[in-house]
Amino acid sequence: MIIIGEKINGFIPRTLQAIEAKDESYIREIAKSQTEFGADYLDVCAGTAPEIERDTLKWLIDIVQDTVDTPLCIDSSDVNVILEMMPLAKKPGVINSISGEVGKCEAILPVIQGTDWKVIALTCDPNGIPTDPQVKFNIAETLIANAQAHGLALDSIFIDPLVTTLATQQTSLLSFNEAVRLIKAKYPEVHITSGLSNISFGMPYRKAINTQFLALAMSAGMDSAIMDPTSADMRATLYATDALLGNDEYTMNYLTAFRQGLIGPAKKA
Amino acid sequence: MIIIGEKINGFIPRTLQAIEAKDESYIREIAKSQTEFGADYLDVCAGTAPEIERDTLKWLIDIVQDTVDTPLCIDSSDVNVILEMMPLAKKPGVINSISGEVGKCEAILPVIQGTDWKVIALTCDPNGIPTDPQVKFNIAETLIANAQAHGLALDSIFIDPLVTTLATQQTSLLSFNEAVRLIKAKYPEVHITSGLSNISFGMPYRKAINTQFLALAMSAGMDSAIMDPTSADMRATLYATDALLGNDEYTMNYLTAFRQGLIGPAKKA
Repeated sequence: MIIIGEKINGFIPRTLQAIEAKDESYIREIAKSQTEFGADYLDVCAGTAPEIERDTLKWLIDIVQDTVDTPLCIDSSDVNVILEMMPLAKKPGVINSISGEVGKCEAILPVIQGTDWKVIALTCDPNGIPTDPQVKFNIAETLIANAQAHGLALDSIFIDPLVTTLATQQTSLLSFNEAVRLIKAKYPEVHITSGLSNISFGMPYRKAINTQFLALAMSAGMDSAIMDPTSADMRATLYATDALLGNDEYTMNYLTAFRQGLIGPAKKA
Repeated sequence: MIIIGEKINGFIPRTLQAIEAKDESYIREIAKSQTEFGADYLDVCAGTAPEIERDTLKWLIDIVQDTVDTPLCIDSSDVNVILEMMPLAKKPGVINSISGEVGKCEAILPVIQGTDWKVIALTCDPNGIPTDPQVKFNIAETLIANAQAHGLALDSIFIDPLVTTLATQQTSLLSFNEAVRLIKAKYPEVHITSGLSNISFGMPYRKAINTQFLALAMSAGMDSAIMDPTSADMRATLYATDALLGNDEYTMNYLTAFRQGLIGPAKKA
């Protein structure tokens, strides 16, 4: 599993609080803890008003890169903001995101052509966010072709099939998983990722839904997640599911994670 | 999901301790709590030396039936013991178990013919416990035909495809799930059940493996489990997975379970 740490995101209330208070130490702390608990990339998203998004992102990126060596996942809905932030990165990371929306591929793909940057591509287009797995697949296929035309290797592409909210759509997981299976069947080297918490929006005890979404999506072939690696429940679900799916030879990763204290019963305070 | 409560079983150390101490109150307590937390049947298994198995089971059955109305799941590897215990049951329950082993079907099926008893059939035969899903399916098919020949309805049959231990067999879950899919594809009305804890034998932090086995097996079509319904983690996994798999209309069961306190954050002591 390729883990993209989700916590440095101003849409998360605790992080927004730190951003507004210019609380450097909290940002350093979540950069460090997510890295220690296995994040391969750290998502950075301002979540602030558009007029201060650039300043916020620059502040976050500087702190993160001064704290850890983990590559960034630059997260903005504004491609111009992404393009302005990329030169600040000390090393290539992930762009979050392009999609079938007008102008996104055209702005980003030529810039990362010939570099080691990877990209997250969302399965939405000018018609919106489809729920039909076949339509999700069709958009993914167009995005993959577009990225390949700009020289990207298949394993530099992360497709996010955009899971819908379970509270409003009962087939949310089934449709997501079917899209994952369709994409992985034709493009086994392309990665599939997803923000884990969207599915449980509006429901109580979201942790239960989020952990089981992780397990069930992994069983369909999802091999990356935008998640909180500091959550003990998420880690336990991830390691156990990988072992059960036969992806963990001799269950060595699971056993090592247990020995290192990454999974196991909650410690008494 | 059809839940068979697993706790009244002398192979569980705490229960054996109660059996040996003739501690009626503990047996009453776990009969009551498993029922309150949703057990549809209560497994009763002596787990004691063969010479006292009958006395132990009779003692357990009397206490359970004096405490709750939940039907029994009579659990013994000795068909003669099962046959002697059945008349003690106040109402029809489940026989645990028959299999392809010599004499088991012949002893049990004629006795439950024309009654409301249900039966768990294990996919093993004189050649042992197969790991190949196709062989599991073939044995299941023979057992189903045999049960039908004795007048059992398909939904009175529970197939247990006998999950192996993950620590010694990396394809344990994959093989189990493939067997589940093969059986459910041909016999959608037949139930699939499994003891959840076998898979994690010999591994640390078994809860993580057991919960994810439950979720992943449910995604393949398992619709029953021999489990501990008093475990908050198991319940959360079960309700969340059912909702994600689209089996819970408007997520009403999940929301009701949350309101009733069946799922949710652990209460502070």
